[in-house]
Amino acid sequence: MTVRALAFDVFGTVVDWRSSVIAELEQFGRAHGVTADWPTFADDWRAGYAPAMDRVRRGELPWTKLDGVHRMVLDELLAARDISVSDEDVEHLNRAWHRLNPWPDSVAGLIRLKQRYVITTLSNGNVSLLTNMAKHAGLPWDCVISAELFGHYKPDREAYLGCAALLDLAPDEVMLVAAHPSDLRAARDASLRTAYVVRPLERGPGRPLPRTEDGEFDVVAADFGDLADQLDA
Amino acid sequence: MTVRALAFDVFGTVVDWRSSVIAELEQFGRAHGVTADWPTFADDWRAGYAPAMDRVRRGELPWTKLDGVHRMVLDELLAARDISVSDEDVEHLNRAWHRLNPWPDSVAGLIRLKQRYVITTLSNGNVSLLTNMAKHAGLPWDCVISAELFGHYKPDREAYLGCAALLDLAPDEVMLVAAHPSDLRAARDASLRTAYVVRPLERGPGRPLPRTEDGEFDVVAADFGDLADQLDA
Repeated sequence: MTVRALAFDVFGTVVDWRSSVIAELEQFGRAHGVTADWPTFADDWRAGYAPAMDRVRRGELPWTKLDGVHRMVLDELLAARDISVSDEDVEHLNRAWHRLNPWPDSVAGLIRLKQRYVITTLSNGNVSLLTNMAKHAGLPWDCVISAELFGHYKPDREAYLGCAALLDLAPDEVMLVAAHPSDLRAARDASLRTAYVVRPLERGPGRPLPRTEDGEFDVVAADFGDLADQLDA
Repeated sequence: MTVRALAFDVFGTVVDWRSSVIAELEQFGRAHGVTADWPTFADDWRAGYAPAMDRVRRGELPWTKLDGVHRMVLDELLAARDISVSDEDVEHLNRAWHRLNPWPDSVAGLIRLKQRYVITTLSNGNVSLLTNMAKHAGLPWDCVISAELFGHYKPDREAYLGCAALLDLAPDEVMLVAAHPSDLRAARDASLRTAYVVRPLERGPGRPLPRTEDGEFDVVAADFGDLADQLDA
């Protein structure tokens, strides 16, 4: 196995989107005197993202940056709860996804892995979102690669192969690191290597882990420190 | 002036391509028992790049990564001098452009500027070249933006406007930082802001500076430290 680059899924794998978005929603609620079940709001926001992205993937919507997908879903969620604030305030809230916090092991693990490998994002988040998030969270990427660069959201094959092509590597010299088996399976089908990092708290406490088969992925790691150990970084 | 991001030309502006490439050529010569006027070879290599890139810009050649442009020119220069080595050795030499060293003020200046601005490359170098160079030289980019992402080399307008679009900024919120007036003029024509950094040694000692008009650019700086001072970073 001659892996040269690690391509990281970001939402849930590197950053804890759920607790970060809930905190932003609570702050939004306090600022505007609105109460709601913010954890459910956050879960609904995240859940709305896949169907909206699939409409882009099927060609029912033109290419839309993830910021635009998030905003479409957010507008619906606010309307359903009769919450009305200025466009500027909605836009600020929408950019909560630019301000997500890392898991406790993420930054230290990335710093170790960067010594030995090229480390890049491979996320459905748009370039500006990923760039702002890296500044906010101190993520030391070597470069920022996004579905936006290919006009194809993961799990479209073009995103995985496009990432390898930009890095000038063969697909099997690139390892996708993700907390989501479906993402990893699509990467494997495109000939990338795969590292499954288990993030049991991604969807909140007490949720079952996704199902995986033994030996399905090249590496299974408990966190980024464990991943660095296993990859000799 | 509300500049949010600084987009850096790289060859000559951030890194000292000439002394780096000469050193690589000298090492190549020693390894293969070949002598040549390496400074002239380096100058010819660099000089061959603009005409080859212009053939891509005019559509006479299909889109070619800068690595491929460098290799076309290198093959001609080696053949003209009857230097014959393995393809692997030529390829290693061609990637000298991935291993360029920064000017003495570059890294410290970028670290300061990064505190206040998004800092990105905006280079004709391909993504893998810029990524490898950043690791080699310790350049702390927030993201890596390349002509390759747009299929348009600078000074095509698409490169400047594409950079602003990826960052989700208006063109006049982005400032191009470059040592080359022609690059800056094209950026200005695309409504970007401009910072001219004077690099008198780019083409070797004793060369005249490019001609510029007073007030032509928003900022004129002696180096990246001076740029950081002027931009309150």
